Amino acid sequence: MSAVPSHHDLAARIRAGDRATLARAITLIESKRADHRKSAHQLVQDLLPHTGKALRIGITGSPGVGKSTTIDALGSYLTSQDYKVAVLAVDPSSTRTGGSILGDKTRMAKLSADDNAFIRPSPSSGTLGGVASKTRETMLLCEAAGYDVILVETVGIGQSETAVASMTDFFLVLMLPGAGDELQGIKKGVVELADMIAVNKADGDNIKRATQAAAEYRAALHILKAHSATWAPPVITYSALTGQGVSDLWAQAQNYREKMSATGEFAEKRRAQQVTWMWAMLEDRLFAQLRADPKLKAKLPQLEKAVAAGTLSPMLAVEEVADAMGL
Amino acid sequence: MSAVPSHHDLAARIRAGDRATLARAITLIESKRADHRKSAHQLVQDLLPHTGKALRIGITGSPGVGKSTTIDALGSYLTSQDYKVAVLAVDPSSTRTGGSILGDKTRMAKLSADDNAFIRPSPSSGTLGGVASKTRETMLLCEAAGYDVILVETVGIGQSETAVASMTDFFLVLMLPGAGDELQGIKKGVVELADMIAVNKADGDNIKRATQAAAEYRAALHILKAHSATWAPPVITYSALTGQGVSDLWAQAQNYREKMSATGEFAEKRRAQQVTWMWAMLEDRLFAQLRADPKLKAKLPQLEKAVAAGTLSPMLAVEEVADAMGL
Repeated sequence: MSAVPSHHDLAARIRAGDRATLARAITLIESKRADHRKSAHQLVQDLLPHTGKALRIGITGSPGVGKSTTIDALGSYLTSQDYKVAVLAVDPSSTRTGGSILGDKTRMAKLSADDNAFIRPSPSSGTLGGVASKTRETMLLCEAAGYDVILVETVGIGQSETAVASMTDFFLVLMLPGAGDELQGIKKGVVELADMIAVNKADGDNIKRATQAAAEYRAALHILKAHSATWAPPVITYSALTGQGVSDLWAQAQNYREKMSATGEFAEKRRAQQVTWMWAMLEDRLFAQLRADPKLKAKLPQLEKAVAAGTLSPMLAVEEVADAMGL
Repeated sequence: MSAVPSHHDLAARIRAGDRATLARAITLIESKRADHRKSAHQLVQDLLPHTGKALRIGITGSPGVGKSTTIDALGSYLTSQDYKVAVLAVDPSSTRTGGSILGDKTRMAKLSADDNAFIRPSPSSGTLGGVASKTRETMLLCEAAGYDVILVETVGIGQSETAVASMTDFFLVLMLPGAGDELQGIKKGVVELADMIAVNKADGDNIKRATQAAAEYRAALHILKAHSATWAPPVITYSALTGQGVSDLWAQAQNYREKMSATGEFAEKRRAQQVTWMWAMLEDRLFAQLRADPKLKAKLPQLEKAVAAGTLSPMLAVEEVADAMGL
């Protein structure tokens, strides 16, 4: 993409539901060129009044839990209910894996052939913060393009679950049936983020084990204070393979939206997410600036070494850096 | 404290174990006066070579769990074993409560009368970051003064558990016996921080309920990935009232130190804590600067309002701020 198209033209075509333009606009958002970035920001600003109607669902789970088949099944169920579905991903690892998490039609066979579904791979480069920001903006574009449900998938590397939870309304954690060691794979804090836990592969011989696992998760959630008095995260079982329970995933997400909207918590959560996002980007920008500061670059390595070795007090190190930078 | 004493003199007297000087030096650390702060940092720097020998134990738990009686019992047990014990606190609320968390002799009757124990209330003002930093430096002073065990208590407000976990070697989470609703009080993420969970009040009629609660916590911990392959957080029961099991609290902490030291994880954790602390302070400093910037002060309120209302894209808001500040 060389020439920068007018963001007004783009906005109009996106709102008209032109998939090719949507895809092109997302590429603009992912571009590193300063002029591209500027017009991307303008584009998002233009479209902002037409965003926010979709239900944003974050989805995570350990490898092998069946994220792709679940999204394929859930997405297809939603299009069968006349919803338009967009599938995005936050995958900071995609630089290395070449965006393996999404984009390969094979992963979501049904959905990728569905005219009412739009699947976009994760931006294939950048820090988590950068990838997350681009995904947020992509989400807004999809909303302006008329998609009713945005499914944001994360491969669950580093802090990516937190990033996805902080940009979605409803955070769904997928689990495997089976108890004990098989359950050890859950990363710290992820259970805390869950608005719902869903145990996949509740089919055939697995049904009993899936039910047991669900009971264990209920016990675990039970001893944690709920996010909100309005919503206690449910634990359900389903099978992406047979489709049993897939509609419950959606029913619970809608149930969440209704209850939280009634109390105003739904809108408040989005407001808070927006402001937090702004501050996070500001900090990133500021800190990039700090780390790039030549005076600091010269000092930092030995300071950090001395602090790590315990020969220099962090307090004094900060004084030195602050002095060096005239803070 | 008007005149600033030479930090060399202070350092010598602290190393000699002079409690009055230690108390005075801590007041210097807590002072807001620039000259006090400068010599406080110098003092910490001077003493740094004589720090790090103590075992640093963080302790948290919901109100009513018996933190004070536990610290009184554990501390007294340790002094009976010829250890010198310092008790510090991180309580960002102490501005409001007037430092209610610590300092009142009544809360730790035995320990406060013990010559081998040093109890210091939380700095009674400042942000969590500020309070935590002062507590860290106070911890270093206590180590230089020859205290073998530092117990850092947190009242568990906001992020104070994270702050305490990030300055201690071993993070102990105290729980109440009883199941169900009584357990609902645990704040999100705290269980994740725990190097051990200890259920108090395992005495009299409560023993059975304490054992049940311990089993529930074991189940909860079981489905969470351990911090380290070397250490799986144990769940024990004890009674601060009868003293039963109090020695186990210490035995487990020592056990942790031995195992983690053998693999080098103990030292590595401290190194990482130091560097993280340095960066956190640098960020605070930098961000205070940012928020104080007149150009930003003028812009920020309406920007934040527009972002929260969803009429301005956070991305564009950041552009505006960055432009305004010439970043």
